[in-house]
Amino acid sequence: MQLGATSITIVAVIAVIALAALVVAAVLRRQVLAAGEGTVLMQQIAQAVQEGASAYLSRQFRTLALFAAIVCALLFLLPGDSGVKIGRSLFFLVGAGFSAAIGFLGMWLATRANLRVAAAASRPGGRAEGARIAFRTGGVVGMAVVGLGLLGAAGVVLLYGGEAPAVLEGFGFGAALLAMFMRVGGGIFTKAADVGADLVGKVEQNIPEDDPRNAATIADNVGDNVGDCAGMAADLFESYAVTLVAALILGRAAFGEQGMVFPLVVTAVGALVAALGVAITRVRGEESGLTAINRGFYVSALVGVLLAAVAAYAYLPSSFAALTGGTAGLETHGGDPRLVASAAVLVGVVLAGVILWVTGYFTGTTSKPTLHVARTTLTGPATVVLSGIGVGFESAVYTAGIIAAAICGVFLLAGGSVPLALFLIALAGCGLLTTVGVIVAMDTFGPVSDNAQGIAEMSGDVSDEGAQILTDLDAVGNTTKAVTKGIAIATAVLAATALFGSYADAVTHALADIRGEVGDDLVAAMLSYDIISPVTLVGVILGGATVFLFSGLAVDAVTRAAGAIVFEVRRQFREHPGIMTGEVRPEYGRVVDICTRDSLRELATPGLLAAFAPIAVGFGLGVGPLAGFLAGAIGSGVLMAVFLANSGGTWDNAKKIIEDGNYGGKGSPAHAAAVIGDTVGDPFKDTAGPAINPLIKVMNLVSVLIAPAVVVVSVGDDANHVVRLSIAVVATAVAFGAVIASRVRAARVDREGRLEHETQLVG
Amino acid sequence: MQLGATSITIVAVIAVIALAALVVAAVLRRQVLAAGEGTVLMQQIAQAVQEGASAYLSRQFRTLALFAAIVCALLFLLPGDSGVKIGRSLFFLVGAGFSAAIGFLGMWLATRANLRVAAAASRPGGRAEGARIAFRTGGVVGMAVVGLGLLGAAGVVLLYGGEAPAVLEGFGFGAALLAMFMRVGGGIFTKAADVGADLVGKVEQNIPEDDPRNAATIADNVGDNVGDCAGMAADLFESYAVTLVAALILGRAAFGEQGMVFPLVVTAVGALVAALGVAITRVRGEESGLTAINRGFYVSALVGVLLAAVAAYAYLPSSFAALTGGTAGLETHGGDPRLVASAAVLVGVVLAGVILWVTGYFTGTTSKPTLHVARTTLTGPATVVLSGIGVGFESAVYTAGIIAAAICGVFLLAGGSVPLALFLIALAGCGLLTTVGVIVAMDTFGPVSDNAQGIAEMSGDVSDEGAQILTDLDAVGNTTKAVTKGIAIATAVLAATALFGSYADAVTHALADIRGEVGDDLVAAMLSYDIISPVTLVGVILGGATVFLFSGLAVDAVTRAAGAIVFEVRRQFREHPGIMTGEVRPEYGRVVDICTRDSLRELATPGLLAAFAPIAVGFGLGVGPLAGFLAGAIGSGVLMAVFLANSGGTWDNAKKIIEDGNYGGKGSPAHAAAVIGDTVGDPFKDTAGPAINPLIKVMNLVSVLIAPAVVVVSVGDDANHVVRLSIAVVATAVAFGAVIASRVRAARVDREGRLEHETQLVG
Repeated sequence: MQLGATSITIVAVIAVIALAALVVAAVLRRQVLAAGEGTVLMQQIAQAVQEGASAYLSRQFRTLALFAAIVCALLFLLPGDSGVKIGRSLFFLVGAGFSAAIGFLGMWLATRANLRVAAAASRPGGRAEGARIAFRTGGVVGMAVVGLGLLGAAGVVLLYGGEAPAVLEGFGFGAALLAMFMRVGGGIFTKAADVGADLVGKVEQNIPEDDPRNAATIADNVGDNVGDCAGMAADLFESYAVTLVAALILGRAAFGEQGMVFPLVVTAVGALVAALGVAITRVRGEESGLTAINRGFYVSALVGVLLAAVAAYAYLPSSFAALTGGTAGLETHGGDPRLVASAAVLVGVVLAGVILWVTGYFTGTTSKPTLHVARTTLTGPATVVLSGIGVGFESAVYTAGIIAAAICGVFLLAGGSVPLALFLIALAGCGLLTTVGVIVAMDTFGPVSDNAQGIAEMSGDVSDEGAQILTDLDAVGNTTKAVTKGIAIATAVLAATALFGSYADAVTHALADIRGEVGDDLVAAMLSYDIISPVTLVGVILGGATVFLFSGLAVDAVTRAAGAIVFEVRRQFREHPGIMTGEVRPEYGRVVDICTRDSLRELATPGLLAAFAPIAVGFGLGVGPLAGFLAGAIGSGVLMAVFLANSGGTWDNAKKIIEDGNYGGKGSPAHAAAVIGDTVGDPFKDTAGPAINPLIKVMNLVSVLIAPAVVVVSVGDDANHVVRLSIAVVATAVAFGAVIASRVRAARVDREGRLEHETQLVG
Repeated sequence: MQLGATSITIVAVIAVIALAALVVAAVLRRQVLAAGEGTVLMQQIAQAVQEGASAYLSRQFRTLALFAAIVCALLFLLPGDSGVKIGRSLFFLVGAGFSAAIGFLGMWLATRANLRVAAAASRPGGRAEGARIAFRTGGVVGMAVVGLGLLGAAGVVLLYGGEAPAVLEGFGFGAALLAMFMRVGGGIFTKAADVGADLVGKVEQNIPEDDPRNAATIADNVGDNVGDCAGMAADLFESYAVTLVAALILGRAAFGEQGMVFPLVVTAVGALVAALGVAITRVRGEESGLTAINRGFYVSALVGVLLAAVAAYAYLPSSFAALTGGTAGLETHGGDPRLVASAAVLVGVVLAGVILWVTGYFTGTTSKPTLHVARTTLTGPATVVLSGIGVGFESAVYTAGIIAAAICGVFLLAGGSVPLALFLIALAGCGLLTTVGVIVAMDTFGPVSDNAQGIAEMSGDVSDEGAQILTDLDAVGNTTKAVTKGIAIATAVLAATALFGSYADAVTHALADIRGEVGDDLVAAMLSYDIISPVTLVGVILGGATVFLFSGLAVDAVTRAAGAIVFEVRRQFREHPGIMTGEVRPEYGRVVDICTRDSLRELATPGLLAAFAPIAVGFGLGVGPLAGFLAGAIGSGVLMAVFLANSGGTWDNAKKIIEDGNYGGKGSPAHAAAVIGDTVGDPFKDTAGPAINPLIKVMNLVSVLIAPAVVVVSVGDDANHVVRLSIAVVATAVAFGAVIASRVRAARVDREGRLEHETQLVG
């Protein structure tokens, strides 16, 4: 299929809009860097953070380059047209490269912006200026996410025309895979450092967070940048890319050529409103940063919906019969494509708003659930942990229910056609993401102001008033971070549900190719995804199990790495008593090194599990159970992700409630209990939880990619049977081997830790 | 269908075996009660526990009687033959009554046996005698479970012949529903008391567990009996009944008449080996109680498999063609029914053994994972909580994987026939349960010896040697309890997977009835359980969400009730300083009252949720999404249940490792951290986790029961449509209304608690 001239022109214009978004990002970056850099001491601290973060990301990219090369080669082994395969492998690398680049950019700029925000806060009238720099920094990343995502997708469509969907799978897969590794690696780094720093600093030595006497503070700040900035930026880029990919693939089936172009139009609208959002978000007078950010979000969302509707009515025909080239047989469908497309975008935007509200309700500092958790600090750490877990479970249920309601709503819009419903779900995802530019900007706000506060505290060069401004900005950042996670997870469910359709599509196409060979009966049997079959149910159980194992591995990795850091910081305090009195400077670098080493080491296991588990299930049990596997992973994944994010969020804010002087305030037993809850929540909300979003997409895309191969080896002679089982065995061995290797390593770390402990007791 | 004369004779013999099992139970009961009762002080304490437990269960039964009456009436509203409906409603009450009776018996005897075990331990050579009494107590409950389960099922088959499956659905549903409420209510009681007692006693006042100065100790002991004894006994009875029901229903489809009789034969074999197991389990010389129990388990399992195989070869024909009356069209199936049936039973028994081993690996005091958790006590409570959660996630994955492998194995046995596979899965469940008598005996061992230790500690009337014996017995009990939970959960998955088949069966039959009216196309469309459809996927998400919400509600209920107890115990310590010096006796009764009030209050919400969520999904979204709902609930349910049980188990034993003198031993910071972990684990392993087992079955049986009604109202005119949506709205309102009512109550408790806290500060 070749695109028509109109479509080519429109996509070309969209590519130009993408480039324009990148130019806006460059302009904003210059504005951020133009701000003042504060005192020499502040610059020295920022320098140390910059070096640590750059060193970590560089080492991480070197490790991942090898992995990406192997995956790229494996992609080539899959059946299919070689031209498409070359394109897919190439764009796999492009997707991975863009993901990495966005992550690096996020980290690079954040480590420079933090210093400038701290400096701005020390000057008179610093509140508005500090908020402006922090938000602009996010704006750079947001515009880059939008620009690169749109550029990649538009480029593929221009180059490959009707073959674009197959190539786009590679692009989305590259983006998701890299993002998953960056979420896991960065997440382990940031929380190992944070937990380690808090356990020794706040709990044992009773010194404030970010106290320069704590050897883990620089590592903690580095972690904010490689985890919360780089990981989050890559993750949102991946959400953006994969949702767009799903929309294009399903759009072609439902709407034909116009279905491939329209999602790009909606996303281009998103680029425009992102620029608008960044431009209009400024703090007026004494209002809080949150008010300004919320205003930016809602205005962008509203403008986005209106523009998308205008685009739908301008571009799409008024009846399904007038659409050209769709393969889903919708010609006789009675609806109005313009109306259903606009309505789907609207559902996505409304979903974003509702999730924003629900997340705020469960994790906000003034909401009932968080107040309840704060109150349980009176009965000790155990009840804090239990109440937070209860809130997390409950909020997961409501969030999942709301997403489910949105899917049902879109399904009703489709009037009973499953292919149309799937496309509309993907379009709702695009609608949700029209605000991604503003969301990235909101999220980056968090770590930048957190880091600014860290630099201010460590340098001691910021006035009391300036410190208060930074504390306020940091609190705003906590809220925006929780909201972003909810929205990222919603995109994961929508994209995964839609991609589920791509998976069925891939299976159907592969079967159509061999129908002549094997006969209709076998094709019909293989096309069954009956959830009633015990083996499909086994798939559902295994899909859920993968999410649990992945989460467990991520949490374990943080526990282990944090343990190593606790021993190191304790050792420094013990061997250099001058650190406590402020006479001796702690060896910050050693803690950064431990974090770097441990994060990279722990990164591989969850990654291999995610990539190989669907291969094992698909080749081992067949296409129906693999569908069950995906359903189980999506169902458990969304619940687990929201549970982890929101229980972490509510513990964090319960701690803030205590620190504001309630139930005894700082230093009271209630505060100690709240700190323990917060520490448990750290790897929940910043390591395991957010990594589930790319995990779901990686497993989905792997399934889509391998589906034709599974179909081919599932039929035919014994040789195929041997190939199928061999692949299943190898994939199982890789996934399990990684887990077992991690266990063996863990046992060694345990032994070493025990020795170290005994040495410490003797010393 | 009428049963043949041979079948009637066999079933009648089985009914006699069931009665014989009840006679054995009565004999064992007399033996237990004949043992000596110790000192007057010990008797007084035991008396208080007996009264508290009886009062609680009586009040619980009064509350549940109303609920059972309503459900019984609702059952009558479902479409179907009125003779069957009367039978079903009647046997619903019988199932519920048996469940309640078993629970009451378990509690009644345990509260008398604990005293006798404590008394026996004080005498010379008390180890063997104490273990014997504790195990015999379990034997009574085990034989009663087996006897009543078998009697009920055999009675239904004798009375209803070919209509038995429909009536059995009522029997299983009654058993599961009552058991779920008893698990939830008893679980909240026992853990609220336990957590409350530990938080004030161990953590704040630094006095030992079961110290008579702690006002919550009697409540803690009452809890052990109403939760761990009564709840567990009802739960295992329900597992037994529902697995048997599933096997009979699917057996009829696959094997015809012989398929209805054979599961009863296997279970009768189970009754015989249970008696054997109880008879041969005795402690020889100085060996530990665990060695003796394990020997009893393995011998029973082996004998069970052999006898089941003998029965299969004696009773079943050698080809599927020779079976009469199966509806699954297996006449041409090439396998040997005797072989596949024996193999399925073997898979079930092996599964029991493997789960025993895996649970031991993850929660045992000498295994690597628990040692790892114990080591994390060195870095404080947060790392203990995190490492335990990691272990829980991982063990859930392996356990789920093993159960999945067993299902796949049985599926292979069936040679591609889904109806046969479903029956064999149910038969594997029966195989797993041939050892249920021994398992109940093992499990009851735990709370009885725990209570005996409590009585010994509180009375101070037991020698040091006697106390050591009781401590050893208690440690054995901890291990057996964890194993039982693993096995109970495995039965849940097997029964649920098989019942899933009954659900599909019910839908097919209902559709067959209306095929003429609505045409083949609509029937085919309605029979689709395609997991690929977005709405089915929504069902999967909602099924998982229900498990999360249920778990969250259970954990929350414990947190709240425990908080109330903490305030009460603190109040007593503060207002009566004489309690601490031992001069004043605490008001034990007030804590028992608080536990009773709170448990009954918190019981309703999760119960209503479980009963009404499938109704809302089924009528609201249709039969396909309801199938997805069940798949999601099973997948998330097994993972969540094992996660909760094993993380709780590993924390409990990590604490024991510290208390054995490692990492600083009792009173060290490591010990404080371990106690916090154990406290978090309490509601995990004894409230939320075990309640998921009956939850899954209740939701499954509700779905099976409503399936025909859903089919009827899903087709036809607008009036049906209105009925369908009305039912969905009402069911949603009930389920959600219960959750919201619980929230409102929680907010009030929070407010009162805050006031109380302020009063305490002032006072």
